[in-house]
Amino acid sequence: MPVVRVLLIEGYGAEVRRRLGRVLTDAVRLVIDAPKDVIIVATEEVKPDNYMRGGLTKQPGAAVADPVEIVRSFLSAMENRDLARARHFLSDDMEMSFPGGVRFENLNEMVAWSRTRYSTITKTFEGFDVCMGENGPVVFCRGFLSGGWVDGQAFSGIRFVDRFELSHNLICRQSVWNDLSECLRG
Amino acid sequence: MPVVRVLLIEGYGAEVRRRLGRVLTDAVRLVIDAPKDVIIVATEEVKPDNYMRGGLTKQPGAAVADPVEIVRSFLSAMENRDLARARHFLSDDMEMSFPGGVRFENLNEMVAWSRTRYSTITKTFEGFDVCMGENGPVVFCRGFLSGGWVDGQAFSGIRFVDRFELSHNLICRQSVWNDLSECLRG
Amino acid sequence: MPVVRVLLIEGYGAEVRRRLGRVLTDAVRLVIDAPKDVIIVATEEVKPDNYMRGGLTKQPGAAVADPVEIVRSFLSAMENRDLARARHFLSDDMEMSFPGGVRFENLNEMVAWSRTRYSTITKTFEGFDVCMGENGPVVFCRGFLSGGWVDGQAFSGIRFVDRFELSHNLICRQSVWNDLSECLRG
Amino acid sequence: MPVVRVLLIEGYGAEVRRRLGRVLTDAVRLVIDAPKDVIIVATEEVKPDNYMRGGLTKQPGAAVADPVEIVRSFLSAMENRDLARARHFLSDDMEMSFPGGVRFENLNEMVAWSRTRYSTITKTFEGFDVCMGENGPVVFCRGFLSGGWVDGQAFSGIRFVDRFELSHNLICRQSVWNDLSECLRG
Amino acid sequence: MPVVRVLLIEGYGAEVRRRLGRVLTDAVRLVIDAPKDVIIVATEEVKPDNYMRGGLTKQPGAAVADPVEIVRSFLSAMENRDLARARHFLSDDMEMSFPGGVRFENLNEMVAWSRTRYSTITKTFEGFDVCMGENGPVVFCRGFLSGGWVDGQAFSGIRFVDRFELSHNLICRQSVWNDLSECLRG
Amino acid sequence: MPVVRVLLIEGYGAEVRRRLGRVLTDAVRLVIDAPKDVIIVATEEVKPDNYMRGGLTKQPGAAVADPVEIVRSFLSAMENRDLARARHFLSDDMEMSFPGGVRFENLNEMVAWSRTRYSTITKTFEGFDVCMGENGPVVFCRGFLSGGWVDGQAFSGIRFVDRFELSHNLICRQSVWNDLSECLRG
Repeated sequence: MPVVRVLLIEGYGAEVRRRLGRVLTDAVRLVIDAPKDVIIVATEEVKPDNYMRGGLTKQPGAAVADPVEIVRSFLSAMENRDLARARHFLSDDMEMSFPGGVRFENLNEMVAWSRTRYSTITKTFEGFDVCMGENGPVVFCRGFLSGGWVDGQAFSGIRFVDRFELSHNLICRQSVWNDLSECLRG
Repeated sequence: MPVVRVLLIEGYGAEVRRRLGRVLTDAVRLVIDAPKDVIIVATEEVKPDNYMRGGLTKQPGAAVADPVEIVRSFLSAMENRDLARARHFLSDDMEMSFPGGVRFENLNEMVAWSRTRYSTITKTFEGFDVCMGENGPVVFCRGFLSGGWVDGQAFSGIRFVDRFELSHNLICRQSVWNDLSECLRG
Repeated sequence: MPVVRVLLIEGYGAEVRRRLGRVLTDAVRLVIDAPKDVIIVATEEVKPDNYMRGGLTKQPGAAVADPVEIVRSFLSAMENRDLARARHFLSDDMEMSFPGGVRFENLNEMVAWSRTRYSTITKTFEGFDVCMGENGPVVFCRGFLSGGWVDGQAFSGIRFVDRFELSHNLICRQSVWNDLSECLRG
Repeated sequence: MPVVRVLLIEGYGAEVRRRLGRVLTDAVRLVIDAPKDVIIVATEEVKPDNYMRGGLTKQPGAAVADPVEIVRSFLSAMENRDLARARHFLSDDMEMSFPGGVRFENLNEMVAWSRTRYSTITKTFEGFDVCMGENGPVVFCRGFLSGGWVDGQAFSGIRFVDRFELSHNLICRQSVWNDLSECLRG
Repeated sequence: MPVVRVLLIEGYGAEVRRRLGRVLTDAVRLVIDAPKDVIIVATEEVKPDNYMRGGLTKQPGAAVADPVEIVRSFLSAMENRDLARARHFLSDDMEMSFPGGVRFENLNEMVAWSRTRYSTITKTFEGFDVCMGENGPVVFCRGFLSGGWVDGQAFSGIRFVDRFELSHNLICRQSVWNDLSECLRG
Repeated sequence: MPVVRVLLIEGYGAEVRRRLGRVLTDAVRLVIDAPKDVIIVATEEVKPDNYMRGGLTKQPGAAVADPVEIVRSFLSAMENRDLARARHFLSDDMEMSFPGGVRFENLNEMVAWSRTRYSTITKTFEGFDVCMGENGPVVFCRGFLSGGWVDGQAFSGIRFVDRFELSHNLICRQSVWNDLSECLRG
C-alpha cells in the first residue's frame, strides 16, 4: 500500500532515478510487510527554477555512484593484481582489516602480507548486500575463495565475506573475514 | 533536496513511522549525495475508508519487527545458552553456516559442535548493518569475541561478523565468520 | 497505475468517502485499460480551517444521496402502491414518459393509465447502471416484470428498463421502456 | 472543493487526458454536491523511469477507446446495412437481446428477424449515457426510431433505448427496448 | 488556478493556519493575475512523528504573532501615554525616526520631543499594509492625526504613515512621516 | 519546515516562477518562525490539457508584472520630467495625495504645484516594501530627497516615503509623505 512520492530537481539520469525507486521500495519493505508489488514509488522532477529552499534556487546534489559497481571494480583490479587501477577506488585515509586483526593502510602492505598466505586468489561472489552507514554506503560481498597456497597446492570453496565503507564514491575501509585459516589449521 | 512523501493507511505505531522515516532517509542518501539535513520525509496517514485499491478498501500490511532487535535478542539468548528462548527467533527451516563451511539445521547440533572449540563465548558489538534482501531483512553484526577455550584459557578481541536473513520476523539463515581459527593457528 | 488523490474538507461520512473511492476507480477504468487492482484512490481530508478558496474558508458541499437507493425506494413504494411515500422521492417538476410515448406529470395520472394495462406489477432487478448527467445522476435499472393483466391472467419474465434523472436527491424524470406490448401483441 | 490529482505514466494523448479529466469530474459530482466549477482535476505525468511498482518500472495501460464513438460507429454501420463493417465492433461472444426477449448471437440472425418487423430503420439520438460496468464500459443510447414497416408504411418518433456492454473496445452485449410493438398494437 | 499545498507539522492553532492561508493567497496574487476565488490553499498537517529532516523528527517553529496586532497594541498604549505597557512591544535595540530626521532610542526621549510639538495626539487608521522584510515583518499604518497643539488649539485630518520593522514579535524600528509640519508652516 | 507545493498550468516564464517562489517563502515567514533555509517551495507545472476546473480546461492567468519595476520606471520618468513616458504607468482614474493633503488627478496639476515648492528633485532609495492590497499590489518606497528649492538653494537628505496602489500593472494611487515642509519650517 505505501505510495512513495519523491520530489527531485531535474537533472538526474534515468538509471539514477530507477536506482532511487529500487532503494526506496526496499526501504519500505524493511518496515512494512506488504506484498512487493503493491509498493509504488513515483518520482516527480521539477525544473531548477521551480525549487527553492530559503527563497533561493538550489543545485541538485550529485548522484552517488553505485557502490556495488565500485566494489566490484576494485576487487577485479585486485584479482588482476593491477594495484594502480585498484588505488583509484580507494580514499587517501583508507584502512584495511584482515583475518587475525591485521591492519594495513595501503595496498602494498596488504599485498606483501598476503604473499605469506597464498600465491593467487579468486573470489566467486554469492551475493552483495548494500546499506547506508553513518557516512556513506556500506557494501558486503560474500562468496567463496579459490586459488593456490604458497606451496603451490590449490584451494577452493573457502567462505569469505568483505565489508566495505565508502565515502564520496571511494572505499575508505575494507574488513575481511574468511575461513582460510580454518583450512590451513585443518 | 529530495522531499519524500509516504502515503500510509492509519494504524502504524509512532516508532514504526519513525523507523520508516529513517530508512527512507538512508535510502535517499544511497543514491543522492545531498547533505543529510536537507532530506525531508513526511508521512501522510489516511483513514482505512479513504484508501482503495481496485475499488476496495484494504487492511494495512503488518509492520515488520525491527530486525536488529530480533538478532540482538537471539544472540543474547544464545550467549545465555537459553536455547528454548533462542528457538523462538528461528524459523522452522533455519540454516546455519559456520567457519570451515560447517552447516547446522538446529541449535543442538551447533551447540554440540561449538563445545569442541570453546567453552564460553561473548560477543561485543561494534556495529550493525541492515539492508533488504530478496525475501526479507538482512542484518550484519560485527565486533569481537571473548570467552574461554576448551582448555580453560581465556581469549578476547577476536574479530567476527554474522549475517542473518530474516523472513516474517524470524531468522531463517545465520552465516558466521570469525578469526577464532586464526588465533588457534597462531 | 493511475494513483488518484482526492482532497476533501473534513466532514463526509465513511460511506460517502468509500462511494467516492468507488466512482473514481470506475471513472479511471472508463479511460485507462489497467487491471482494476492497480488503480489506487486515496482521499485526504483537511480541517475546515485548512482549506481556503479566494482567501476564505469554505463549507464542504453536501453529499449527494446514493441515487440507486433513491430509485429503489421509489420503485418499492410504487410497487406497494404507497403513492404518498413515492411522492417524497419526486421533484415538483417531475415528468414521466411511458411506452407509446405517453407522458405524465403526476403519479395519479400514471396510475390511472396503468390500470388499463395491468392490475399488479412487480419488478425483478437484473442490474443498475449509474452515471452523471448534465444536471445530476442518471440511473438505469433493468430486469423483468411480473404481475397480472387486467383480465386476471398472470405474466412474468417481461423485459424492462427504466431511466431516471435525479437532481438534488429527487427524481425529476422517469423514462420507461418494456416488452409488455410485445407480449400483448403476441 | 474537491481537488483531484491523478498520477499517470507519460504517454497518453491529449484527448485521453482530457477525457480522464471529464470522467473524474463527473464521478466527483455523483457523490459531492459542489458547484461544477469548483471541482479541479489535475493530471501529473511522470516519465516511465520515474514510476515503479514492486521495484519494477511499468508500461502504462492502453487507453480505452471512447465507448460512445464505438457505439455510434456500430449503429451507423448497421443503419447502412454494412454488416461487414459492423462486425468489426463486435466481440466473438457477442449477444443481442431484442424486444420480446428474442436473442441472437450474430448479426445475420438479427437482420433476418428484423426483416419481419420493418424494412428500413433509422435512429435519431436524444442522448448517450456512459458508465463503468463490472467488465467494461456500458453505453446507453436513446432517442427515436423512424423508417418503414414491411408493408411499406412509414413510421417515426418511436421511442427506443439500447444498452451496450463493451469489453476491450468491442461490443459484447446489446440490449434493445423500444415501442415498435406498442405502435403495431395500436 | 494555482493550487497551493502546505505541509505543516501538527500543533498550530486554527487562526494561525487561517492566517497562513490568507498570506499565501495574497502572495500568489502578487504574481499571478487570477480571479481571487480560483486560488486554492490547502494545509496538510502531519504528526510530529511523521515528519523528518535529516532522519530526525523536528519541532514545529513557533507561530509569528500577528504583526498588525502588535502595532495596534503599541500605538494604543502610546496614545494612552501608558509607556510601561508600550515598552513591552519594543525590542532592546529599538530605533525611532521622526519627521525632520530626528532619531530616538527610547520612548522617554521621543515623548519629551513630542511635547514641543503637540500636547495630545490620536491616530485614526485608514489602513494597514503588511509585508515580509529581510529580518521580520514590516507593517505600515496610515491615516489621520488629530489632537491639540501645545498652544491648546485643536488639529485634525493630518495625514500620517508609520513604518514598523518587527523581529521576534517585537518592534525594532519605527519610522514616522506626517504632515504636522506642513500644517504648522501653513 | 513548511513545504509549499504550487500547481501551475505550464506557460509562465522562469523569472515569474522564481518570483512566485520568493513571495511564497516570504508569506510563510510572516506566519511561521522557521529558519529561512528550511522553507521549501516547489512548483509543479502541468500541461494545459492536464488541468480542468468544472470539467473544462483553462488558460493560465497572466503574470502580474513586477510592481517594483513599474514604480521604479514611473519614478525615473518623473525625475527626468518625461511626463509622456510617466503617464504610461498610470491608470486612467489615477489619484495622487501629497503633503498637506493636496490631491491631484493628473500629472500636469501635480507638476504645476511642485514648482511652487522645488525646482528639481531626485530620490535616493533606501528600500522597497511590497504587499498585496485588496485590488492589487501595494508598493512602498522610501529614502531621501535631494534637489534645489525654488530660490536655487540645494537640499538633500530629506526623508520621504511613497505608497503606490497598482491594478492591472498600472499605478492607480500614489500617496506621498516627506519632510520637505519640516525643512522649510526649520
